[in-house]
Amino acid sequence: MKTYNVGILGATGAVGREMLKVLEERNFPINELRLLASPRSVGKKINYRGKEIEIKLACHEAFAGLDIVLGAAANAVAKEFKDDIVKAGAVFIDNSSAFRQDPDTPLVVPEINGDDVFNHHGVISNPNCSTIITLMAVKGINKLSKITGMVASTYQATSGAGVEGPIELMAQMEELGNEYKESGVIPNKGNVEPKVFQYQIAGNVLPMIGSLTDNLYTTEEMKMQNEGRKIMHLPELKVTCTCVRVPVVRSHSIAVSVYTEKPLSVEEVKAQIAKEQGVKLYDDPANKIYPMPIVTSDQDITYVGRIRKDLIHENGITLFCCGDQVRKGAATNAVQIALKLVGLDF
Amino acid sequence: MKTYNVGILGATGAVGREMLKVLEERNFPINELRLLASPRSVGKKINYRGKEIEIKLACHEAFAGLDIVLGAAANAVAKEFKDDIVKAGAVFIDNSSAFRQDPDTPLVVPEINGDDVFNHHGVISNPNCSTIITLMAVKGINKLSKITGMVASTYQATSGAGVEGPIELMAQMEELGNEYKESGVIPNKGNVEPKVFQYQIAGNVLPMIGSLTDNLYTTEEMKMQNEGRKIMHLPELKVTCTCVRVPVVRSHSIAVSVYTEKPLSVEEVKAQIAKEQGVKLYDDPANKIYPMPIVTSDQDITYVGRIRKDLIHENGITLFCCGDQVRKGAATNAVQIALKLVGLDF
Repeated sequence: MKTYNVGILGATGAVGREMLKVLEERNFPINELRLLASPRSVGKKINYRGKEIEIKLACHEAFAGLDIVLGAAANAVAKEFKDDIVKAGAVFIDNSSAFRQDPDTPLVVPEINGDDVFNHHGVISNPNCSTIITLMAVKGINKLSKITGMVASTYQATSGAGVEGPIELMAQMEELGNEYKESGVIPNKGNVEPKVFQYQIAGNVLPMIGSLTDNLYTTEEMKMQNEGRKIMHLPELKVTCTCVRVPVVRSHSIAVSVYTEKPLSVEEVKAQIAKEQGVKLYDDPANKIYPMPIVTSDQDITYVGRIRKDLIHENGITLFCCGDQVRKGAATNAVQIALKLVGLDF
Repeated sequence: MKTYNVGILGATGAVGREMLKVLEERNFPINELRLLASPRSVGKKINYRGKEIEIKLACHEAFAGLDIVLGAAANAVAKEFKDDIVKAGAVFIDNSSAFRQDPDTPLVVPEINGDDVFNHHGVISNPNCSTIITLMAVKGINKLSKITGMVASTYQATSGAGVEGPIELMAQMEELGNEYKESGVIPNKGNVEPKVFQYQIAGNVLPMIGSLTDNLYTTEEMKMQNEGRKIMHLPELKVTCTCVRVPVVRSHSIAVSVYTEKPLSVEEVKAQIAKEQGVKLYDDPANKIYPMPIVTSDQDITYVGRIRKDLIHENGITLFCCGDQVRKGAATNAVQIALKLVGLDF
């Protein structure tokens, strides 16, 4: 079997570490594994298949000999090294948003537009996490009738903000929980200062993720429309999205109303979703079966439930979906792109 | 000044206790205050304006001489005593959902349809909590152009499930927070068994509130449309709602897309919402100003922010609102109905 020299750029972050786990789980055919990070992580060791691999410095010369580089770093880092990676002859599968709207860069969810990987010019972008989970949930609907629009409200986990997000949540939960235990009074605010999030996240929700754009949507909210158009090959798709951070560790949830060209029945939608790769129909609310973060975390599958007819538009279906955004929303999807690229099952 | 004999049915619950606070804050002109509850609370004392008031038994004979009974009990209790209250000559301002769709019973948010209180036949219903907060947020929009539909996704606090809700949340937060502190590993699930909620609520979200109806929406979700129609005098109003419980103590939040007959600009909507009674325009996301539970709790005001044009419909406005559902969503609204009924400012 052919093997590949694989690098991870940003190997010590939440997504980088998860990529390593997924490469191992999926038995990716690796010859050399090169873990690259910023100076403060250089020399640290990370275990892969029982071997300690030393972190090397991410620098312009770091990519020689690599076939694939999985990018798990910030936009600025991705931009800094993109040309070096491409010149080294590697394909850069990048999780940052830096190149997602570049017309020469495929933006891929393998179960939706896998063949787009072959149109790359050295870079393939991995989409936004909430967008991946939402599109996975609705891709079956698009097969039944073309999707024209979506209204989406997200319930996004703290791990979407990186490895420090859940740590901040836990510190605040511990303080508030212990304060209640000692005083018997339910506290509203605590004293653990927010650093990752704009305000306290424990016991709170924050309706602002990303930065504000001219139309008063955030960058995060616009990804659902802009990336959805490119991935689904639906250039006219319209999406109204509200992104909200909630005090959850892992897995993003999304309440979505999906509008299609033709009206669809709940039964045909359920039957199609049940057949979809990477998706689990999880829809029996009378028996307490519905998607939620504590069920979906540490898995690659997007759970879909609460499927019902929209009450405004005859051509609408409303549902609730949930999936682990560090895995399918980031690391798993990137490794799946790599598998598709080298011609293996994903 | 005329004074009134006021009873509270279900005085020891979360809403009953808050009604007592609001009666005091609003200087409701009380002659006798009678606190009624189930046998297990009888004989306990609750402080009102420095006086200890003994809880009396809620029984068929308990209402003689009362002018107003504020109902803070479950549907079954409200139904059991309704005829007794009306026969005693009192007006029953009931927070349960038992009579909300009764055509003879006004369903009132005083700032929206206050004059409806005078059409009562002994009972006035207090609306659902999420519905009150949402309608308070959009009532200004309906003045600019008639609302035809809404898509709403809720982020509902644990106190909406009664006084035991936040206690369960706190116990789970304490366990998870301490587990992380001791182990350094972020926990997903804990061992504090859910009793109030169907599953663990700390670190989770539950897309199911109320029981399932024939159209696969829950009873809680259908209230937004059914109660919205009656309160707003919009019999054709269509609402697609998804109700989700989140690990928050107080204040429900709602992401809403509002569709109107005419297109509206963000500027005119903001200007109108800024003028609305009981509503605060809180909309400067670039400067971290947006509604959230830790800001709105223990207040009577509904905060509205993130106002922007819907991206699907030219006639749509999308926003995020947040308000304390134990206060404006229940206790405060009931006391305001009583104030309106006796001709006082609310």
